[in-house]
Amino acid sequence: MGNIDRKYAPVGVFDSGVGGLTVAREIMRQLPEENVVYFGDTARVPYGSKSKNNIIRFSRQIIRFLETKGVKAIVIACNTASALALDTVRQEVEIPVIGVIEPGARAAVRETANGCIGVAGTEATIRSETYTKVIKRLRPDAEVIGKACPLFVPLVEEGFARHHITEEVIDIYLREMKDTDIDTMILGCTHYPLLRSRIMAYFGENVHIVNPAYETAMDLKEILGKEGLLNDSGRPGEYQFYVSDAAEKFTAFAGSILPYDVAATRQINIEEY
Amino acid sequence: MGNIDRKYAPVGVFDSGVGGLTVAREIMRQLPEENVVYFGDTARVPYGSKSKNNIIRFSRQIIRFLETKGVKAIVIACNTASALALDTVRQEVEIPVIGVIEPGARAAVRETANGCIGVAGTEATIRSETYTKVIKRLRPDAEVIGKACPLFVPLVEEGFARHHITEEVIDIYLREMKDTDIDTMILGCTHYPLLRSRIMAYFGENVHIVNPAYETAMDLKEILGKEGLLNDSGRPGEYQFYVSDAAEKFTAFAGSILPYDVAATRQINIEEY
Repeated sequence: MGNIDRKYAPVGVFDSGVGGLTVAREIMRQLPEENVVYFGDTARVPYGSKSKNNIIRFSRQIIRFLETKGVKAIVIACNTASALALDTVRQEVEIPVIGVIEPGARAAVRETANGCIGVAGTEATIRSETYTKVIKRLRPDAEVIGKACPLFVPLVEEGFARHHITEEVIDIYLREMKDTDIDTMILGCTHYPLLRSRIMAYFGENVHIVNPAYETAMDLKEILGKEGLLNDSGRPGEYQFYVSDAAEKFTAFAGSILPYDVAATRQINIEEY
Repeated sequence: MGNIDRKYAPVGVFDSGVGGLTVAREIMRQLPEENVVYFGDTARVPYGSKSKNNIIRFSRQIIRFLETKGVKAIVIACNTASALALDTVRQEVEIPVIGVIEPGARAAVRETANGCIGVAGTEATIRSETYTKVIKRLRPDAEVIGKACPLFVPLVEEGFARHHITEEVIDIYLREMKDTDIDTMILGCTHYPLLRSRIMAYFGENVHIVNPAYETAMDLKEILGKEGLLNDSGRPGEYQFYVSDAAEKFTAFAGSILPYDVAATRQINIEEY
């Protein structure tokens, strides 16, 4: 298949569940002509408390599934999978695979004045220290303060994002970070942008909050451009949504993240891939 | 294999993760000579927000795994799997399979004076109305009030069981139930016994709190007795622990639930079964 046809192939985007829709939303906004196939691994969500070996295995299965949809590039819209699996799976496929951590780290390094950067993420993302490694590669004198916030995902998923107990949980997890010199903080989990306004209010205007989704979509645009794969059909992209469980719940949640209603989500058995 | 040999075969116990250890603990206490093979599906935990089809598929895989260990009976130490999968999987195997819901319902019916019973559980357990159906079979005039409490599991797993925000979440979920006439409440998820003292304090002494684990172990004893399968070796049982992910985290948590240290937990790939 030449580049002329491949241009019109979809971009694959995946996450452990609904969180990655915050990244998909940004891709749809910045690259409105691209077709997108989104996969949410709702049968095995959450990833943040699971091991590297399993995250790699899950990611491989999802990539095999997305390849059956003929994708021209893959975006790992999940910080945990980007932190633990990207380096491995990137070498195993021919098409470009990008994650959210390098874009997020780059944005933070650009924003920070004093080089002191906070990262909030899942247990697995923080333990991997991937953000720290990438940030220090870009700015060796940076100081990176990571904090795992495992309750943020269930709070968002169970509809507590606007509840005052969430304020309290933010305070429990991030109090120490607030007392440091950070001037920039990365929302290092795709669910966290849904708590963005609360976290911004908590840190006040002296801390810049980075959502890696914006920069990730920019990266995708650049890579597709370099490879001559940008879709220039002139027509709005088409979107397909797949999950490994509970398609209805996903569809309802998706409607609250995306600026339009998701018509249908299909459920597949990801363990078959 | 005759009953003489099968007597010494282990009992298989499984759960989505660590919660089922509250049931295993009770089996070990009441049946100290039984060998136990425990499986925690930590790669796919939690079950409570997932669909019936997937819970049945997960349960079948786990039962196939436990059968490779030569178990003589299986205890589904997970309310969600008991509610959604027990009826199906019970018909597919030769050995006895028991769940936690019938024992829990029976205990509640015995304890209640006014027939008004509360059930706290996962979203899937409550939506299935399995407790309601079983309770009404035992006492047709009973009134059953169910409430899904999805944040309880992450609160326990993330170490917030004794934190004051847990008190607040208990109040958010159970306030309405507290204002009813219930005189008995079932802890309809194996994680919830780890919040037992807080929930007891919340309801006060007029509400009897039922933990199905005790009655489940009694059921197991009765069934093994009937089938001539009670282990009477005179030696303390041996225990094996398997998980589908993050064996170390499981081992650490297990140590806080069981009255002894778990020496080693082995990790297997449950998707291969």
